Amino acid sequence: IPSKLPNISTSIFSVMGQMAAEYEAINLSQGFPNFPSDPALNALVDQAMRDGFNQYAPMQGDFELRMEISKKIENLYQHFYNPETEITITAGATQAIFTIIAATISKGDEVIIFTPAYDCYAPTVQLFGGKIVPIQLKPPSYGVDWKEVSDKISSKTKMIIINSPHNPSGMLFSEEDMLELQRLAEKNDLLVLSDEVYEHIIFDGNVHQSASKFDALANRSFITASFGKTFHNTGWKMGYCAAPEYLMKEFQKVHQFVVFCVNHPIQKALATYLKDANHYLKLSDFYQQKRDFFLHLMEGSNFKIIPSKGTYFQMLDFSEISTENDIAFAERLTKELKIATIPTSVFNEGKKDFKQIRVCFAKTDETLAEAAKILSEL
Amino acid sequence: IPSKLPNISTSIFSVMGQMAAEYEAINLSQGFPNFPSDPALNALVDQAMRDGFNQYAPMQGDFELRMEISKKIENLYQHFYNPETEITITAGATQAIFTIIAATISKGDEVIIFTPAYDCYAPTVQLFGGKIVPIQLKPPSYGVDWKEVSDKISSKTKMIIINSPHNPSGMLFSEEDMLELQRLAEKNDLLVLSDEVYEHIIFDGNVHQSASKFDALANRSFITASFGKTFHNTGWKMGYCAAPEYLMKEFQKVHQFVVFCVNHPIQKALATYLKDANHYLKLSDFYQQKRDFFLHLMEGSNFKIIPSKGTYFQMLDFSEISTENDIAFAERLTKELKIATIPTSVFNEGKKDFKQIRVCFAKTDETLAEAAKILSEL
Ligand SMILES: CSCCC(=O)C(=O)O
Ligand SMILES: CSCCC(=O)C(=O)O
Repeated sequence: IPSKLPNISTSIFSVMGQMAAEYEAINLSQGFPNFPSDPALNALVDQAMRDGFNQYAPMQGDFELRMEISKKIENLYQHFYNPETEITITAGATQAIFTIIAATISKGDEVIIFTPAYDCYAPTVQLFGGKIVPIQLKPPSYGVDWKEVSDKISSKTKMIIINSPHNPSGMLFSEEDMLELQRLAEKNDLLVLSDEVYEHIIFDGNVHQSASKFDALANRSFITASFGKTFHNTGWKMGYCAAPEYLMKEFQKVHQFVVFCVNHPIQKALATYLKDANHYLKLSDFYQQKRDFFLHLMEGSNFKIIPSKGTYFQMLDFSEISTENDIAFAERLTKELKIATIPTSVFNEGKKDFKQIRVCFAKTDETLAEAAKILSEL
Repeated sequence: IPSKLPNISTSIFSVMGQMAAEYEAINLSQGFPNFPSDPALNALVDQAMRDGFNQYAPMQGDFELRMEISKKIENLYQHFYNPETEITITAGATQAIFTIIAATISKGDEVIIFTPAYDCYAPTVQLFGGKIVPIQLKPPSYGVDWKEVSDKISSKTKMIIINSPHNPSGMLFSEEDMLELQRLAEKNDLLVLSDEVYEHIIFDGNVHQSASKFDALANRSFITASFGKTFHNTGWKMGYCAAPEYLMKEFQKVHQFVVFCVNHPIQKALATYLKDANHYLKLSDFYQQKRDFFLHLMEGSNFKIIPSKGTYFQMLDFSEISTENDIAFAERLTKELKIATIPTSVFNEGKKDFKQIRVCFAKTDETLAEAAKILSEL
């Protein structure tokens, strides 16, 4: 049969994860913690199963959970989403992103993304006949040139996808970035998909600039976030989408046919767990300590390092260590030095290689120390 | 924004579920049990969380679970699916169905469905630019006229979607039906989507005719099944898709962008639970008892009833009770008599009304007795 995605093969996360397992390497590749999620949260899921929440949840998600999300967003970003009509619980942020694109992008529509970009945006746009217009962000700053963005907007541009804190670079959008985005989106009547899965992991006193903070922007944005990234259980596959009602209506039309609804006991557990804001407010400090611990051990290494400003990823520039391309370098690191990382050229248009590998520091201090010992000797 | 699904509104399951709650009606509408799932299975999920299976599962699903599924299919239907390459775990059968269609259907492709049909097939085909070619099955037998199917096949026909045991009618495809389907699919080079979510709920000594039993058919079929329907936990949202490698490859290309992977602790629990075949082999007897219990109490009622042959649904023909259309009748039943059912015209092309409402008998005997008492007096 003819392939709908002829240029797609196994994702880098599966490739590096398998290679890590095969070579028994320390796995700093795919973004997930190697420490346990809160036993109290596990216990809430168990309780929800015992309490009998084992049948279909409402299509939009458990109402109590939607209310807690609405409150959280209002407290943090001063924007009110109506839990009745403007929030949907999803099977992870990936399913939210897929559904947003499915609900909005048609043949011929152009979608601007900033590369390096998480690898699900482009194929999903392609699946619905849209055209990706990539804008390359460059090390060391990975900053956006908004003049370039403005130049790339055409009459066919339908959506801009942003992701701050940014995976893989650890870059943040500033308030000025968001205001520029808002201006361009309004001027050109664009939709925005704001992937905010690392919203609670932000360092050095910086503040997360959620699209929901900017009213005119929020009015044309889908925001997606991830419980897995925030509560250390990426394998539970829970996230949500928030958007104004006229957009959420279209989202839900598609959502009901993608999954109908998502895991009920976990929704019940999260509704309770979210009531204590400390469960997410303390996350930045937690991960800043990990970043600093790792960077301290990497002092004096031959990698060039700009500290990550958010996410649980750190970019390492290996240009002073090797002339290999990043894929070959990452492969050798896994096979010979037993450390699996992500070569980030795969996230760039044309696989442009900036000699940057990504490490995930959502790991125990022991794992980070082991990894830093090997890496810092390169 | 222009809607990608302009003719879609809230699904009948959400509508009737909400109406049931609002009017405090006995809820026999959406298909889910009102009795607990096995505490031993819940405990396995809890154990998997404690054991730390809280991060991303492999994209295709937990390997042990895929092996158990492969063994089950081989034991029951004598067809071998390679667990490495031919099985994927999904967020319920709905996500499998969506992904199958996403991976195969393009603009202009025709897809044959038998109506009344579960309401996700048509909109999903529409979302990818395909055209639905409906074939109406009619009470009382809901049998297929394969000559009609043959006549409806055109050079554009890409896929036939089947569903046996059939929701909502409780009809089964016989071996002859499957052989006819196989012949037509081969002759016209068609794909088949076989929705087998009720495979383990089959009555009166009948046998499930899985598409996997027929080699030439299996070779061009995607099969989907549901753990939620089999293990009484529809809210866990777990199912799978099995298909030959050349089809599964395309399925997985899309699957990785729809959800990446699905809930890990539940996959671990199911892998263990599936090892005891009694957990699904006893299901037909269990539900046959419920069907018989309900039908016995309905003896002498004014509904015309042909006993369901499979699924946990029973059709009730109300043509001797009321001349209302089925939607009005079901609404009145919910509001006045406090019993929520599903009017099945919504599953027919052009909402053709055969005066049939569907009740779900996956309910405690107490609930069934209460409902039958009211219904049998109509
Ligand atoms: C869903 S797999 C990717 C996980 C992730 O966010 C990353 O490693 O970038
Ligand atoms: C996913 S909602 C529909 C549940 C079901 O299978 C039915 O009631 O027909």
